[in-house]
Amino acid sequence: MTDKRALISGLGLMGGSLAAALTQAGWQVWLHHRRPEVAVAAAARGWGTAVAEPVAPVAVAVVCGPVSAIPAMAQAAAAGCPGAAITDVGSTKAGIVAALAGVHRFVGSHPMAGSHRQGLEAADAALYRGRLCITTPVATTDVTALATVEQLWQAVGMRVVQMDPVSHDAAVAAGSHLPHLLASTAAACCTDAGLHVAAGGFRDTTRIAAGSPDLWADILLANRRAVAERLAVAQGRLTDLARLLESGDAAAVAAWLAVGQRQRAAFDAMDQHLPMGQ
Amino acid sequence: MTDKRALISGLGLMGGSLAAALTQAGWQVWLHHRRPEVAVAAAARGWGTAVAEPVAPVAVAVVCGPVSAIPAMAQAAAAGCPGAAITDVGSTKAGIVAALAGVHRFVGSHPMAGSHRQGLEAADAALYRGRLCITTPVATTDVTALATVEQLWQAVGMRVVQMDPVSHDAAVAAGSHLPHLLASTAAACCTDAGLHVAAGGFRDTTRIAAGSPDLWADILLANRRAVAERLAVAQGRLTDLARLLESGDAAAVAAWLAVGQRQRAAFDAMDQHLPMGQ
Repeated sequence: MTDKRALISGLGLMGGSLAAALTQAGWQVWLHHRRPEVAVAAAARGWGTAVAEPVAPVAVAVVCGPVSAIPAMAQAAAAGCPGAAITDVGSTKAGIVAALAGVHRFVGSHPMAGSHRQGLEAADAALYRGRLCITTPVATTDVTALATVEQLWQAVGMRVVQMDPVSHDAAVAAGSHLPHLLASTAAACCTDAGLHVAAGGFRDTTRIAAGSPDLWADILLANRRAVAERLAVAQGRLTDLARLLESGDAAAVAAWLAVGQRQRAAFDAMDQHLPMGQ
Repeated sequence: MTDKRALISGLGLMGGSLAAALTQAGWQVWLHHRRPEVAVAAAARGWGTAVAEPVAPVAVAVVCGPVSAIPAMAQAAAAGCPGAAITDVGSTKAGIVAALAGVHRFVGSHPMAGSHRQGLEAADAALYRGRLCITTPVATTDVTALATVEQLWQAVGMRVVQMDPVSHDAAVAAGSHLPHLLASTAAACCTDAGLHVAAGGFRDTTRIAAGSPDLWADILLANRRAVAERLAVAQGRLTDLARLLESGDAAAVAAWLAVGQRQRAAFDAMDQHLPMGQ
């Protein structure tokens, strides 16, 4: 029988939504935030008990913060929750897992859910439901902690798959971080006259460029090696296209475009049976 | 009082939708297509009278075909419809307008509506309603022809604005063509593992990568000078980002991302009061 007691440290969109979802699923939740009034506000919504420090008698502690803050938050939760499994919600994993190599009860998690909205006000008990969560155990990971963490994500309706941290980071560089920086580039390179004639294609392509620059700078830098590798591939493709446009070879330009069309079709084929998040 | 007689030459998505919309608006329509059975199929839907050649006693003829085919189609319509205003639906304008400089009754048009679907089967009488149409008159353009063409677009519910052909092409390179090729790049550079973790951000950013490679190769090449100029700007920004990631300067990466965020916000501010098409 699962021990349904969790601490959540960091109560923004991700942490607040998790507190709401776990409460709904019958868990007992302790709420911690760097600014105590945020934990009090979450408790006032009926999502658990506010605590001033990340200290609680729980089976699992989840730290929800910017990628660069997660190692220190996880260390504090490990000290405050003896015996508990510790996990996080960071969207890059290799750096975090390496920084916490000494905490064998730590299991890296990347719940793939989100929104362009931020903060406790945007919290939504349904945020995680039906989405994919990637856990990133390594050789030294405590297997009991791993099982506990995966039960927590399943309790809020997620499908869980395991990847090693480096493969995870390479995959999200390709599937998430490169699209983000190309969306940002499409928006940034648009002239004022271009904005006047921009329409549905521009709207979709640049939607994620609205995301928080600080949050995304943190993510891109935490995953800089894998991002730089994908970015170099993208730059190579754009250089190829510039040459093809110069040559005027319509069949070659069409072949260049067909590569993207194929990968998009492959995504659509998977996307139909695998509902996922942000 | 408007002379409500039009020929439409080329009955794919754009031409078929225009025939449906004009018929609904009480116009008398002649239908021409390279393959006569397509014109017969459109006539069977009640959208006008099929003709084997682009010959009809009309006030205006609209040629709807790939950008590279438009000059010859417009010449044929001008020969077959004496005295009629001639226009088109091509998404680039400078090359077409230059190729038709001798046809003073020709007025370039870019009705900004579309769909990823193609062909007469996808035709929709509501396609143009509420969208923006750009006309591109030049010094030699017949003013009566210009008025006739603009009345036609207004009859199907479009807002009409005028731009010179070169400014138009620069604007669509920034607002439409660069986003298209960056969306294609995001899709093309995604690994198989990346597709498995890709979600809503990837879905939106790469949606337009599903567009027809042949059609888009035609568009990019017809506008190659303006596209190459925007592409070079984008490549410069990506090179800047690669350097910033290398430096690890979080504030500088955030500042880089903030430029795209600002342009996206500027688009959203305009988009709220200006409904437009693809």
